[in-house]
Amino acid sequence: MADDTTVSAVLDSLDRGLDAALDRLAGFLRIPSISTDPAHAGDVRRAAEWLRDELAGLGFQAAVRDTPGHPMVVARSQAGGARPLLFYGHYDVQPVDPLDLWNRPPFDPQIEDTPSGRVIRARGASDDKGQLMTFVEAFRAWREVHGELPSDLILLFEGEEESGSPSLRPFLRDNADELRASLAIICDTGLYADGRPAITTQLRGLVGQEVVVHAADRDLHSGAFGGLAANPIMILAQALSALKDDRGRISLPGFYDGVADLPPELARDWQALDFDAAEFLARVGLSTPVGEQGRTALEMVWNQPTAEINGIEGGYTGKGFKTVLPATARAKVSFRLTGTQDPQAIRRAFQDHVRRFVPGDCRVEFHDHGASPASVMDISDPAFAQAKAALTQEWGREAAFIGAGGSIPIAGDFKRILGMDTLLIGFASDDDRIHSPNEKYDVDSFAKGARSWARILAALR
Amino acid sequence: MADDTTVSAVLDSLDRGLDAALDRLAGFLRIPSISTDPAHAGDVRRAAEWLRDELAGLGFQAAVRDTPGHPMVVARSQAGGARPLLFYGHYDVQPVDPLDLWNRPPFDPQIEDTPSGRVIRARGASDDKGQLMTFVEAFRAWREVHGELPSDLILLFEGEEESGSPSLRPFLRDNADELRASLAIICDTGLYADGRPAITTQLRGLVGQEVVVHAADRDLHSGAFGGLAANPIMILAQALSALKDDRGRISLPGFYDGVADLPPELARDWQALDFDAAEFLARVGLSTPVGEQGRTALEMVWNQPTAEINGIEGGYTGKGFKTVLPATARAKVSFRLTGTQDPQAIRRAFQDHVRRFVPGDCRVEFHDHGASPASVMDISDPAFAQAKAALTQEWGREAAFIGAGGSIPIAGDFKRILGMDTLLIGFASDDDRIHSPNEKYDVDSFAKGARSWARILAALR
Repeated sequence: MADDTTVSAVLDSLDRGLDAALDRLAGFLRIPSISTDPAHAGDVRRAAEWLRDELAGLGFQAAVRDTPGHPMVVARSQAGGARPLLFYGHYDVQPVDPLDLWNRPPFDPQIEDTPSGRVIRARGASDDKGQLMTFVEAFRAWREVHGELPSDLILLFEGEEESGSPSLRPFLRDNADELRASLAIICDTGLYADGRPAITTQLRGLVGQEVVVHAADRDLHSGAFGGLAANPIMILAQALSALKDDRGRISLPGFYDGVADLPPELARDWQALDFDAAEFLARVGLSTPVGEQGRTALEMVWNQPTAEINGIEGGYTGKGFKTVLPATARAKVSFRLTGTQDPQAIRRAFQDHVRRFVPGDCRVEFHDHGASPASVMDISDPAFAQAKAALTQEWGREAAFIGAGGSIPIAGDFKRILGMDTLLIGFASDDDRIHSPNEKYDVDSFAKGARSWARILAALR
Repeated sequence: MADDTTVSAVLDSLDRGLDAALDRLAGFLRIPSISTDPAHAGDVRRAAEWLRDELAGLGFQAAVRDTPGHPMVVARSQAGGARPLLFYGHYDVQPVDPLDLWNRPPFDPQIEDTPSGRVIRARGASDDKGQLMTFVEAFRAWREVHGELPSDLILLFEGEEESGSPSLRPFLRDNADELRASLAIICDTGLYADGRPAITTQLRGLVGQEVVVHAADRDLHSGAFGGLAANPIMILAQALSALKDDRGRISLPGFYDGVADLPPELARDWQALDFDAAEFLARVGLSTPVGEQGRTALEMVWNQPTAEINGIEGGYTGKGFKTVLPATARAKVSFRLTGTQDPQAIRRAFQDHVRRFVPGDCRVEFHDHGASPASVMDISDPAFAQAKAALTQEWGREAAFIGAGGSIPIAGDFKRILGMDTLLIGFASDDDRIHSPNEKYDVDSFAKGARSWARILAALR
């Protein structure tokens, strides 16, 4: 570990250079690199080239690498004795419509004073150009103080994150030897709340399944056939409602295989977050947590699996009434997975479960959607404790290991394709309005974010 | 009861006059009285006037009576000592599209020889002009033989049956004293099967109910909220699947109040029909009767109530997958009623049932659709046995008392507004293609239908 004096020098350099760093970020934000819009393909490439030039100027071996879609920017510092680290971010942004809801042009960034502090406002300010640049500014300051970059950094900056990352997996596979490090670091998440820094150490997996129940070969009149002919909506309702027992537990056989209670260290951290489930639900007009009894709310959203019906459709749904017994009914169902739950085993268990409700003269059809296991990082890797301590020092508040209810597919890809865990750290705030008009990033997040990386780089050496 | 000789003379007259009767029917069928199409309003009135003139020519006091919609034709024979009878039919017809599926112009009727006998083909041939004219031809032959019409006949012919009968109830209410008889007779149903005549003595009622479950005040992401926030689709699936128990019985408290087992006389008749549930279901691609165990198939569709989900909708139902927890989910549910089940009590029981599944922070909204009790005719009225015997004699096959799974709202209106039971007898065949291109009516149905009414008129005197 670097001594405190060296770190202090890097932090001082960052503080002195903040205005210049904000100018550089503004330049980056002026490039409208909207990846889903083919009309902006040239801008996406321009953003990649801008990044390459920045990184080359810092001494990285940097290149714009073509893919079938938008390019990747890959950069390296020299190999050395240090632990190899892969930094990931994305330089593409979301579209800006509806444009008339923006208070200023989305690609004309500006620093604004707001009641809660200074912000830089522009599309991409938070997601992810501002966060990505916290890496770059930390590397720049390090080089200024040390005279050289930290060794064994691999940078991978993507231009398709906002359009589904179609080229990422093939690129990881084709360049696995070049990209493999001992740990990945992603800066695309947020502070936990109110400026408390956090490291996301587990993400739920996901199985998506569409189910179509076919009964009669045509829609029937419920007067003529009601009481005698099978109703596919009822079959579906019965199969889906039986997914949970009276206590809210999911009843598929073997469903909980691989679901583990929280390790005490995480349980302590989560408890300390003082998560207010009532307040969280009140924001969306609800008040009562559902789900299995005897679990905390954070356990339910981060460490427990779910079964949810995401869509259902059958029969007559227009205005008025039609006494039809429909020929088919369909639903989309998803399972959020935790621990080592096996997505394919759960898909099979669900299909078997549904089949038990389908009479012999009816038929069920399944369409498979995504299947990914949970990502659970190995927090016994000392990098986790080191990064946590560094964050705590920088933010003056105890950093927390947290979970996430959703998936970050890239973290899963790094694990599956490159065999690496990921340190998920970010500085975005809930009110950054990412994907919405008037996106912003707190200048404080930007400044302390870069300082956080300087501390973490030092801690991980 | 009239003696056999007199009846024979009327039947002979009908036989002799068949070709002329078919010519008259053809003239009636040439009038395109499509009631739903405002462009045909003049034709609808023309059909009413055609009927009035026919009936006046037979000695009825006949009039075209205006309503806010299409007119009614009301006709009377002179009052006498006989039992007053109200005959109902409708002179409007369904639209004809898709016109290109017709083998000949729909309003250019023609007699065709087919492998199963002669038919008259045109829109309305079976539904209901051909059936209505079986009444008229029977009255005509009766008059020819007796020199006068049977006494105390009230004829009510409607021009809005195919467009929802909006004017019927007000007309019945406004003219109740004039229209009230001791029994109504409707000729708008069919033979049971293969030429076996039938009298429909009970019709199921119907309660329609729409239910909307509201959970969060917006659609939620299932990663962020799944496991903690209520899912309205799941709430709906649970409430609806709990409508039935393991044995297929409907579990609403008090639901079966008023449902009676079949009287032995009807049970015998229904048994004798040799209803082949497997064949009935096979026609629509099914094979296994659902519903309560230990009941015959005909009991299930005619004498047992049902609970059916007619439509359901919630969440994302487009292509692909979206891991949404929707704000709302909705379903349309209907109950077919039998015996003396109370529609309003069942609506309340259903609403109470659903409410038990809706957590305190969610909300349920109900939209009421139609509510009508079952129509169960009092077959101890001797008219039923008399008509049954007359039909048996005419068709050479034992006539049957049967039920119907659906509703015929007019029969319910006659009961509620005029206090009369209805003798539902008709001669249509399953293959008449009513409401479809190439509608036809068997000449045999037309001829024996008119003869049946002659016999029934004689029997009921």
